[in-house]
Amino acid sequence: MVINSAAIRWHGDFLELLDQRLLPTEIVWLPVRNSQDAATAIRDMVVRGAPAIGITAAYGLALEAARMEQRASMSALAGAVETLAASRPTAVNLFWALDRLQATGGSLEGAELVQALTQDAEAIHQEDIAANHALGDFGASLLPQDATVYTHCNTGALATGGHGTALGIIRSAWQKQQLRGVYAGETRPWLQGSRLTSWELANDGIPVTLVADSTAGQLMAQGKVQAVIVGADRITANGDTANKIGTYNLAVLAKHHGIPFIVAAPVSTLDPALPDGSHIVIEERDGSEVRQIQGKVVAPSEVAVYNPAFDVTPGELITAIVTERGVIEAPTTEKVLAHLRQQ
Amino acid sequence: MVINSAAIRWHGDFLELLDQRLLPTEIVWLPVRNSQDAATAIRDMVVRGAPAIGITAAYGLALEAARMEQRASMSALAGAVETLAASRPTAVNLFWALDRLQATGGSLEGAELVQALTQDAEAIHQEDIAANHALGDFGASLLPQDATVYTHCNTGALATGGHGTALGIIRSAWQKQQLRGVYAGETRPWLQGSRLTSWELANDGIPVTLVADSTAGQLMAQGKVQAVIVGADRITANGDTANKIGTYNLAVLAKHHGIPFIVAAPVSTLDPALPDGSHIVIEERDGSEVRQIQGKVVAPSEVAVYNPAFDVTPGELITAIVTERGVIEAPTTEKVLAHLRQQ
Repeated sequence: MVINSAAIRWHGDFLELLDQRLLPTEIVWLPVRNSQDAATAIRDMVVRGAPAIGITAAYGLALEAARMEQRASMSALAGAVETLAASRPTAVNLFWALDRLQATGGSLEGAELVQALTQDAEAIHQEDIAANHALGDFGASLLPQDATVYTHCNTGALATGGHGTALGIIRSAWQKQQLRGVYAGETRPWLQGSRLTSWELANDGIPVTLVADSTAGQLMAQGKVQAVIVGADRITANGDTANKIGTYNLAVLAKHHGIPFIVAAPVSTLDPALPDGSHIVIEERDGSEVRQIQGKVVAPSEVAVYNPAFDVTPGELITAIVTERGVIEAPTTEKVLAHLRQQ
Repeated sequence: MVINSAAIRWHGDFLELLDQRLLPTEIVWLPVRNSQDAATAIRDMVVRGAPAIGITAAYGLALEAARMEQRASMSALAGAVETLAASRPTAVNLFWALDRLQATGGSLEGAELVQALTQDAEAIHQEDIAANHALGDFGASLLPQDATVYTHCNTGALATGGHGTALGIIRSAWQKQQLRGVYAGETRPWLQGSRLTSWELANDGIPVTLVADSTAGQLMAQGKVQAVIVGADRITANGDTANKIGTYNLAVLAKHHGIPFIVAAPVSTLDPALPDGSHIVIEERDGSEVRQIQGKVVAPSEVAVYNPAFDVTPGELITAIVTERGVIEAPTTEKVLAHLRQQ
């Protein structure tokens, strides 16, 4: 089967990833032919966004099985699973996808295993697209007419199988003619907002204004923002949400200004195994991402840097979590677990 | 008279400014020989920081008078005053310095006027250095032992006549062995934190850790910050404070976490003519500062940008304003006006 989405092209026997490190100035597709290629692409952020990482890992494992041909078995794939799992520690979708494929693979071997893993990876990809459309519609129903929203990082077609999570809500609201426009925070250090979100929204003709992350408070104080919508890399049982560094700042600012703070994520991002955010491992990345920007030196080379990729927003600052199953308002452990039980 | 400070060298008959656009990779001093040179240097941010802008404008006007020689008079200098006043709209020290020199000049002419303006510009420069040392000591007294503080933008020797305002407090606290270290926000879009503050503090041997601006909330939630200290470009009668974009975010975050939020500024930054922050003109700068970083393109070239250089923090979010005269705790109009009356 061939599945083309904005940043992931599945050709049935190999994968191509849009190299998001080079956007918006260059469009380059990198081939992925095995689990090591997939793990490297995830670690080096060729592909990013929790759902897209999960999809890539699933394809990577299926490709590794195909490469093994008749030798393929889940025990032979254990090293590949480990390598993929180690590629980025915070995104739960990565572990969710690997767990799902391991369960699918079970005791199958050879061609049967290859076919089962391939079909399941394709299903994960297609289900993610469908989930994003569903959550986009649920989320749009939470926005007032003519809303201007603020978003952070990139949670769009580039970060998912397609349509997007936070940007999925924004796309759905735009299609329903509910949306006036979007402020996109540039999202230092990796600049997903300037490089990816503003590019993606502009391509869709959705009015987007790019701002430095520091501008969010002033925009809210001026009444220019009616909702903040962000994605998630992992949501614990009580609604605590790990997402791109800076998300927590926005949640505190939104609360101070009485503005709804909405988290958009597929159900696969919910991690009921963790009771709260204190259990989330936060990835720290190299200081060079702050000392340099796209290779340009902007700070003394020896200065110490603290560069966490994510922060944790407590559930009590979140107005609503939106998944493909519906809306969890003012999340609590009880509500999140009930949401997971519902089909 | 010759006065050398970190970014301003006064040679008696011309001025040199350290080109802060090139730090930390290049050390280049630009000569300033008249008011137009000074206005251009202020507008293009060769020199920045409210006190340093005031000093530069004062020297620029004195140099313009010297260039006119016997033709010099305050009415002949009216055009130069206008050009300097138009160079950056938000920093009140600019207008304060120009007003002061106009009063000093009065009806003097020729060599007498040149001498009076030159001496007053030198006095403004020297008084600023002395004021920063005084306010540094007052501010240090507000910090607990072994404090780690968070600062924004650059308010150090580079932004003032010397020692610094917020960094003046940090320097004084370090000298008193009260300080554990400093987190410096990189301060997009202009990166004063990475390019200037981390360079300046590292040069002084003060432990500094650079972070993306988005990291502030997480640092506070983790208990890693005991105070936020920032400078100011203009403080209105009720304590509302215009300062570098992002200051307001930090004030809201500090309040949410119960952390003291301290504003450091010389008395010349207080503007009792404005009752509150709604009257402050906020400079908007070109979108290219966000679309590009040091000439490197990081966003689609046609994307809309909102790029205010400053925001306004309400006085009620400020724990204390520190000047060379002392401390205004929980500022109100009554307290600010009383502070201005006190000598």
